[in-house]
Amino acid sequence: MIDELIERMLKGDKRATARLITFVENNEEKAREIVKKIYPYTGRAYIIGITGPPGSGKSTLVDKLIKKAREEEKVVGVIAIDPTSPFTGGALLGDRIRMQRHSTDPGVFIRSMATRGSLGGLAKATNDAIKILDAYGCDVIFVETVGVGQIEVDIVKTADTVVLVTVPGLGDDIQAIKAGLMEIADIFVVNKADKEGAEATMFELELMLDLEKEKWSKKGWKPPIVSTIAFTNKGIEQLWGAINKHREFLLSSGEIEKKRKFRVEEEIKAIVSSTIARKIGEKMGEDDIAILIEKIAKREIDPYSAADLVLEKALGVKA
Amino acid sequence: MIDELIERMLKGDKRATARLITFVENNEEKAREIVKKIYPYTGRAYIIGITGPPGSGKSTLVDKLIKKAREEEKVVGVIAIDPTSPFTGGALLGDRIRMQRHSTDPGVFIRSMATRGSLGGLAKATNDAIKILDAYGCDVIFVETVGVGQIEVDIVKTADTVVLVTVPGLGDDIQAIKAGLMEIADIFVVNKADKEGAEATMFELELMLDLEKEKWSKKGWKPPIVSTIAFTNKGIEQLWGAINKHREFLLSSGEIEKKRKFRVEEEIKAIVSSTIARKIGEKMGEDDIAILIEKIAKREIDPYSAADLVLEKALGVKA
Repeated sequence: MIDELIERMLKGDKRATARLITFVENNEEKAREIVKKIYPYTGRAYIIGITGPPGSGKSTLVDKLIKKAREEEKVVGVIAIDPTSPFTGGALLGDRIRMQRHSTDPGVFIRSMATRGSLGGLAKATNDAIKILDAYGCDVIFVETVGVGQIEVDIVKTADTVVLVTVPGLGDDIQAIKAGLMEIADIFVVNKADKEGAEATMFELELMLDLEKEKWSKKGWKPPIVSTIAFTNKGIEQLWGAINKHREFLLSSGEIEKKRKFRVEEEIKAIVSSTIARKIGEKMGEDDIAILIEKIAKREIDPYSAADLVLEKALGVKA
Repeated sequence: MIDELIERMLKGDKRATARLITFVENNEEKAREIVKKIYPYTGRAYIIGITGPPGSGKSTLVDKLIKKAREEEKVVGVIAIDPTSPFTGGALLGDRIRMQRHSTDPGVFIRSMATRGSLGGLAKATNDAIKILDAYGCDVIFVETVGVGQIEVDIVKTADTVVLVTVPGLGDDIQAIKAGLMEIADIFVVNKADKEGAEATMFELELMLDLEKEKWSKKGWKPPIVSTIAFTNKGIEQLWGAINKHREFLLSSGEIEKKRKFRVEEEIKAIVSSTIARKIGEKMGEDDIAILIEKIAKREIDPYSAADLVLEKALGVKA
């Protein structure tokens, strides 16, 4: 069945593609089989990560960027990492619904990812979904995440071009997030640029970049700051231009190789974590775990010694 | 040296306590030793998780709650999970600085956590720091995180009481986060209640709770919704009351046992991940990894098969 789905996917069948993604989300054995089989067909797509704090208008930006890419007749994939992932299974939000209007376009494939599993589940599933969309024939794949959590940031930073979206007038947390994300951003966007404080935000970013001059001048790429009002399409042309310029920089400087190797490394890590989580689940029953927890609660054993027992029992590994 | 630090910590020495936390953040071997030795002294502290989207005013709320707890002469610990953690090593923000005014109070211990390591590093370090503060003698420990990322949510949901802070007038992402966090919240706070849209937000939360009636009525606890203006202290009394009421509920219903077992389970998972990450780092050199990545880049091998090789080489585990 997998073979048939892959065959249909390679011919551009969206439903087969969607089913394959569902498999890699839910079933590690099938994920393994699918990725092994499609791997030779991958490596063509250009990955654009879009991240930023909640409410910064990322989905609207992606919506407009899809349009730009379609004007150039590129086949577009979108993977939206849903912040509800740990719990609800991912509701479709207003912004996302707006984006969905593209999904009747045969050249656009949109997918929300919402995988549970703190041991690399989401990262692994996202990597696998990217490969499927790559093999499906996407020229460009947007990966959109809320850039706050560690896992979400880990995912987006493996993209070829990372776009960091911010908006004027947010609090201290946002400052921290911006600072934390500075290093992974290839392009900065100040969205909702008609809001009060937009110029101050631009200025602040400029300042931050100036402080990091050594870093980016060594890299050979100074992240541009693009001001947009996604809703009215203002600045989208410039943003698309900046993305293409960064792509050219990566290709001409050979940086693309580094980026892709980094992505593969992160991918291996994600698979390793997820394999181990599965193995522990297989080898240790709930009862075994319950007994250990009981002992810890009574302080007969400490959590580190308990973890050692788990590793030994489930994996035969000595700590 | 560890023994001496622990001895001083148990006598209430803040500097020794701070150093022990630094050890568990940076050195797994020492973390292991410390936790094993202090474990018998833990289990007394009550853990309060405070989470919510960026800019919702969590730090100001914690600042005010510290004051309430101090009025009751409780020894207070605060662990602030810094969203910058993956990159900058954790700058002190404005809100946090405000909170720091308590740190001259011998009954208050405040710590920002900013640990790198996507394989459970932050979760493990936070758990260990909680135990140190517990052994130090804290009656109450606040754990503050930005409730967006998976790891951050995983951390906060192991608290005894989880307070979810929201503010009026945020976008779609916030909706998603709220929806995603509904299940873990024991108390809802609508902060900045003087802002436009506060009543609508309260109403919306009420509605969401009504939809989940089955869940909370089975649990025996309906999460109250508290309206606050942290900055002017409005509603803090009520929030502190709600926290204490939830605590009484946990104690009288026996739910506290479940919560604590869940916490221990999550803790074991975090230690397991972090141990495995360390083992891989020890057993495989950068060269080994580089060769694998090269092969993947050439499509001679797929990432799953590469991960299998890593598992076998580093841990002797067959996939």
